[in-house]
Amino acid sequence: MSEQIKIVVDAMGGDDAPQVTVQGAVEALKITEKISIILTGRTDAIEQELKKYSYDSSRIKIVQADDVIGFDEPPVMAIRKKKNSSIVVGMNLVKRGEADAFVSAGSTGAILVGGQFVVGRIKGIERAPLAPLIPTANGQSLLIDCGANVDARPSHLLQFAQMGSIYMKHVIGVDNPRVAIVNIGAEEEKGNMLVKETYPLLKECSDINFVGSIEARDIPNGDADVIVCEAFVGNVILKLYEGLSSTLLHTVKTGLMRSLRSKVGGLLIKPALKQTMKEFMGEDQGGAPLLGLNGLVVKAHGSSGSDDIKNAILQCIQFNEEGINDKIKENIVTQ
Amino acid sequence: MSEQIKIVVDAMGGDDAPQVTVQGAVEALKITEKISIILTGRTDAIEQELKKYSYDSSRIKIVQADDVIGFDEPPVMAIRKKKNSSIVVGMNLVKRGEADAFVSAGSTGAILVGGQFVVGRIKGIERAPLAPLIPTANGQSLLIDCGANVDARPSHLLQFAQMGSIYMKHVIGVDNPRVAIVNIGAEEEKGNMLVKETYPLLKECSDINFVGSIEARDIPNGDADVIVCEAFVGNVILKLYEGLSSTLLHTVKTGLMRSLRSKVGGLLIKPALKQTMKEFMGEDQGGAPLLGLNGLVVKAHGSSGSDDIKNAILQCIQFNEEGINDKIKENIVTQ
Repeated sequence: MSEQIKIVVDAMGGDDAPQVTVQGAVEALKITEKISIILTGRTDAIEQELKKYSYDSSRIKIVQADDVIGFDEPPVMAIRKKKNSSIVVGMNLVKRGEADAFVSAGSTGAILVGGQFVVGRIKGIERAPLAPLIPTANGQSLLIDCGANVDARPSHLLQFAQMGSIYMKHVIGVDNPRVAIVNIGAEEEKGNMLVKETYPLLKECSDINFVGSIEARDIPNGDADVIVCEAFVGNVILKLYEGLSSTLLHTVKTGLMRSLRSKVGGLLIKPALKQTMKEFMGEDQGGAPLLGLNGLVVKAHGSSGSDDIKNAILQCIQFNEEGINDKIKENIVTQ
Repeated sequence: MSEQIKIVVDAMGGDDAPQVTVQGAVEALKITEKISIILTGRTDAIEQELKKYSYDSSRIKIVQADDVIGFDEPPVMAIRKKKNSSIVVGMNLVKRGEADAFVSAGSTGAILVGGQFVVGRIKGIERAPLAPLIPTANGQSLLIDCGANVDARPSHLLQFAQMGSIYMKHVIGVDNPRVAIVNIGAEEEKGNMLVKETYPLLKECSDINFVGSIEARDIPNGDADVIVCEAFVGNVILKLYEGLSSTLLHTVKTGLMRSLRSKVGGLLIKPALKQTMKEFMGEDQGGAPLLGLNGLVVKAHGSSGSDDIKNAILQCIQFNEEGINDKIKENIVTQ
């Protein structure tokens, strides 16, 4: 067997840590022999959780971290000051090459800042985008960037398009992924300054399959595989996806309570509705990668369950085996 | 009776013009005696439609316009060259004070450009925002700006907040409307340069009820009445609202076809679902106002039916009776 992929899991990150983080890690170990896990956080709390399970103890290790970065702490300050937090300790393991990937359901801001300043960007990569998969009518699309890189420049968006294409092709398995830029009209001359300046760069780039502008209306329809935008717009799209789906489903459910007829109908459709929504939400990767770093950082949702943590861990295998970072270095940085 | 409010309707604008535009105009006349209508467009085509109805002919007038601006024509060029189009002819009537308002379901781009360059902005107003109402869990919110004013400045957004507040209070009847700025986090220090610079201006402005940042996730929940953002972001929100609602409903409907049980359930819930969605979509204003102009311009959806046109026309009454433009002049420009 080849050498194991070492994945650090922030045991303290997320709403239900360390319960679900430890459980997710143990479950991931059972699925594949390819990985070993390092849990960062308070040893006693982690051991307490580990006691609940039987697992291959040769493949799991605890690295003590006294501190936890909270969701409401200013990220830059927290990363600077809390050197002994589960996030900074975990990221340092990746930086020093003692681990291949870092998974956390902790503070998004802290993970983004830590990714850039602790793990560090691949030489030549100007910004490290957060790139979640969003569900569409016919599968899923990569929304890149949803991070904290506000006020982006055209050269950043070009790299996002390139990194996003590599990820969708080699990790998700989409052949010749269609790349589109979010715009307020389909015509080439439309858009704000950033989009107008980025458009020709994407058009001229020979190693992506650029299909032009995409209006937000067509994103849920799955008209592109890699949706390029600056982080403010990406954040609005991602959050509105969550908010509107939830409001619409809630509205429909409430509406079904208005008559006996619709109540009965509601009971009959429940399993099909549940299954459909599950399918729409797609095969969950468990987390969004932060691309372009010296090592992989995966951000899982703060409300992750153990399944999400497990999936986020398993996602790192494909990323590592496909040598995504080597491909990024070869294809982007040397241009 | 006081003088009638004169409303110009672009008879040729929209997917189903002049049928639905003429029908909508005739229906509006029947509802209230407060208005008279001027239809701009090809006289023969309009007369052909008018023949189908009985109406008070003293309150309807045709002004001939030979040309029509198509949906795919570059707006600036079209407004400049087609001086004899139904849009330019209609807007000139408002500009010269021969009418109070202009309603069109034609090309959004042409209406935005024509509003700024034909009708013209109120002195002191820097940009004229397009401000549609969007449905929320507990009513509707004004999304301002969704127009073509890309690369906005903080002073523009401040005026949007003020004009939006006046509109929501006096036209929609929301007491002390809550104003929020779209941001990628709730904290004051978050956001891109534009939001960071706009935030203190909104906070210091004494004539609006500023409640801080709103994340896109909370927009469908109705957490604010006036949602301030620059046009690129507004456009993304508006279009994603349309696209995601449509995709989700389609996905649910398709999912219900998978078993006999869910098919039966689907039939039972159909009336309640339809009613609920109708309620969620809110009391339709029929169109979005373009605020801050020397006269009112209302943009109706390209796919408007006669009801939408009728509602867009009726909306102009409240706007006119409340003297919205005088309020804008008094409250904003003189600051």
